[in-house]
Amino acid sequence: MSDSVLGQRAAEALEAIREKKPLIHNITNFVVMNYTANALLACGASPVMAHAPEEVEEMVAFAGALVLNIGTLSTSWVDAMLTAGRKANELEIPIILDPVGSGATRLRTESARRLMDELSLRVIRGNASEILSLARKGSRTKGVDSIHRVEEAEEAAITLAAELRTTLAITGPVDVVTDGGRVCNVLNGHQLMGYVTGAGCTATALIGAFLAVETDPVAAAACGLAYFGLAAEQAAVSASGPGSFQTALLDTLYRMDRDTLSREARITSARNL
Amino acid sequence: MSDSVLGQRAAEALEAIREKKPLIHNITNFVVMNYTANALLACGASPVMAHAPEEVEEMVAFAGALVLNIGTLSTSWVDAMLTAGRKANELEIPIILDPVGSGATRLRTESARRLMDELSLRVIRGNASEILSLARKGSRTKGVDSIHRVEEAEEAAITLAAELRTTLAITGPVDVVTDGGRVCNVLNGHQLMGYVTGAGCTATALIGAFLAVETDPVAAAACGLAYFGLAAEQAAVSASGPGSFQTALLDTLYRMDRDTLSREARITSARNL
Amino acid sequence: MSDSVLGQRAAEALEAIREKKPLIHNITNFVVMNYTANALLACGASPVMAHAPEEVEEMVAFAGALVLNIGTLSTSWVDAMLTAGRKANELEIPIILDPVGSGATRLRTESARRLMDELSLRVIRGNASEILSLARKGSRTKGVDSIHRVEEAEEAAITLAAELRTTLAITGPVDVVTDGGRVCNVLNGHQLMGYVTGAGCTATALIGAFLAVETDPVAAAACGLAYFGLAAEQAAVSASGPGSFQTALLDTLYRMDRDTLSREARITSARNL
Repeated sequence: MSDSVLGQRAAEALEAIREKKPLIHNITNFVVMNYTANALLACGASPVMAHAPEEVEEMVAFAGALVLNIGTLSTSWVDAMLTAGRKANELEIPIILDPVGSGATRLRTESARRLMDELSLRVIRGNASEILSLARKGSRTKGVDSIHRVEEAEEAAITLAAELRTTLAITGPVDVVTDGGRVCNVLNGHQLMGYVTGAGCTATALIGAFLAVETDPVAAAACGLAYFGLAAEQAAVSASGPGSFQTALLDTLYRMDRDTLSREARITSARNL
Repeated sequence: MSDSVLGQRAAEALEAIREKKPLIHNITNFVVMNYTANALLACGASPVMAHAPEEVEEMVAFAGALVLNIGTLSTSWVDAMLTAGRKANELEIPIILDPVGSGATRLRTESARRLMDELSLRVIRGNASEILSLARKGSRTKGVDSIHRVEEAEEAAITLAAELRTTLAITGPVDVVTDGGRVCNVLNGHQLMGYVTGAGCTATALIGAFLAVETDPVAAAACGLAYFGLAAEQAAVSASGPGSFQTALLDTLYRMDRDTLSREARITSARNL
Repeated sequence: MSDSVLGQRAAEALEAIREKKPLIHNITNFVVMNYTANALLACGASPVMAHAPEEVEEMVAFAGALVLNIGTLSTSWVDAMLTAGRKANELEIPIILDPVGSGATRLRTESARRLMDELSLRVIRGNASEILSLARKGSRTKGVDSIHRVEEAEEAAITLAAELRTTLAITGPVDVVTDGGRVCNVLNGHQLMGYVTGAGCTATALIGAFLAVETDPVAAAACGLAYFGLAAEQAAVSASGPGSFQTALLDTLYRMDRDTLSREARITSARNL
């Protein structure tokens, strides 16, 4: 699969999102709820945030994808994620997990693993430290920012993805997407993303929207990351710092046209391993 | 009542908000707390968010209006809304309800109805699907975005408002405000509002501010919606997309002057039915 | 200690934050989580929000400072603040408290006092009404906006700081910082800060970052406030209202250079009383 094929696939998926406006059900953290909802709207999807145990099964039944994010987790929210996730699995609605801060505290690592063990997850997206912490042998981190480089995580991720039978998306200066059998890299992005809280969470939510219209999880993750990274490159052109950057990013997500995405998505061929 | 009379009334109410700086007590959803607080500040009001059962009665006693919004509800938050609402009713402080997602899940529909049954609500604002779901015969929706057109909801709303003895405000491309005896339309607005999460919730919060200074709920709702819609029209002029639009909207809410609002508010005469 | 000395100290502290990227652990309110996280990132620090009782001790152990904020408190969150705070005290990690709305409701006043009684707090930052309410004789306020002037609070604050053996930072048109033995004023700032929800909470979070690198709490609070106030002055130059102001503020926090801060920080000498 060549670059230009995946770029075109990203453009087609974006068009499909804008046409179908899939409902994306998020059980996510308090910090990023507003920004990820706005990013999903800018993309063309229809976001909903709902965490009450009494309603998550009903809500997820309408959804094109379920986004789980443990950024400000508590045990009752993790229970709601499991309830929603089981229903999503039953209905074959794709789930993406963002294991924010996994590796930093036992609660986060164990919650991420519990969600991995009890649910069938289509994609897991995290930074290198978070993804490394998901391996049984584990790895420690500090807070929610990565202390590992993507390169260190790539080999471990390929092994882990095969073991877990899921697709892993590791974001950093270069993104890695692998299902254990294939691996590809996404080169789009901008360093200002590191100065916007929840940039990673937003990537996760956007991949959720792509999963609602693209059945191959490797393609969905790579396309979602290329779209987000390219929009960030465009936003950075006019930005004076992280405030104007995050505002412009919603504009560029909204204004992204099919041809530009198809042409400027920088996704390396999905290598078969 | 003619257009220009309601436009002038909107301008007078805005001036009263800026002078009195009424405290607006919000028990609202996690997604929009920041943006609605900023919109209330831009308008000239003083927002507070407080949901603890131990304090809501004390807090609402200072308030000019109480805003209830079930966007990310849980049962304990609905209980807090009822506690705050009973005290507001006792003190004759106006309450506005935003039944976000009513019709999408049983929990939302039943919670909205419980708030309607147990409290005396001055105004209920929602999209067409949400308002239609409040009628006993009900109506289903998906997520939090409307799947009904305002026109479909207008007749039902007039009947429902009369039954419930409250004022209903249905927002969409054209807004409808009715208390069952009168109906008026607000024509201000812009399509970019549909790309800002919580635009409807923000309309609700702003109507809350208008209720704190304007005793007629039909006038308060129409004036609040005209003010918000006109600010959106102004913000859209310079916007490059939903990010710069939502930033500019706080600016235009803040900078709106009396004369412009009086002149450019597009509120149709309140027809007596 | 002269103005220029404290200005230079602010510049050195900012540089130290950018080099060390200290983790700042926030247990704060829902309204401001996103904005304060973004402000901490713009400053150069690494924010984390975590409130689950199972993880706060582990998380705070990585932190350079702990920020406690009761803006949307509930009893379980106050318990988590106490758990995190005791561990921070044990590890000698500085704590800053923002007693949002103390004086408005019993729950807020009592929670603030409980945190003061059970923890050793390095700094408490609030508006004049909030700080006055912390004195045993108390003082009433309305909502979360100050109804007292800073001047009224200065004398009370000096006495109170000595009694409580902590540093108090009162923000308003002129900021006051005192530990009971010394007092200084910060003159930087802009009136548009009053139109951004959580501007005070953001000041608190930024002082948290300065506490992670500056051991003298009077210097840390004064330097943090001067940095924030100066960034606000710069942001106001291009702002058209509170929306563009809050966006620009993240840019100016990010772009602040050492020389400008050293030169334009307006901190009066710390007078010995």
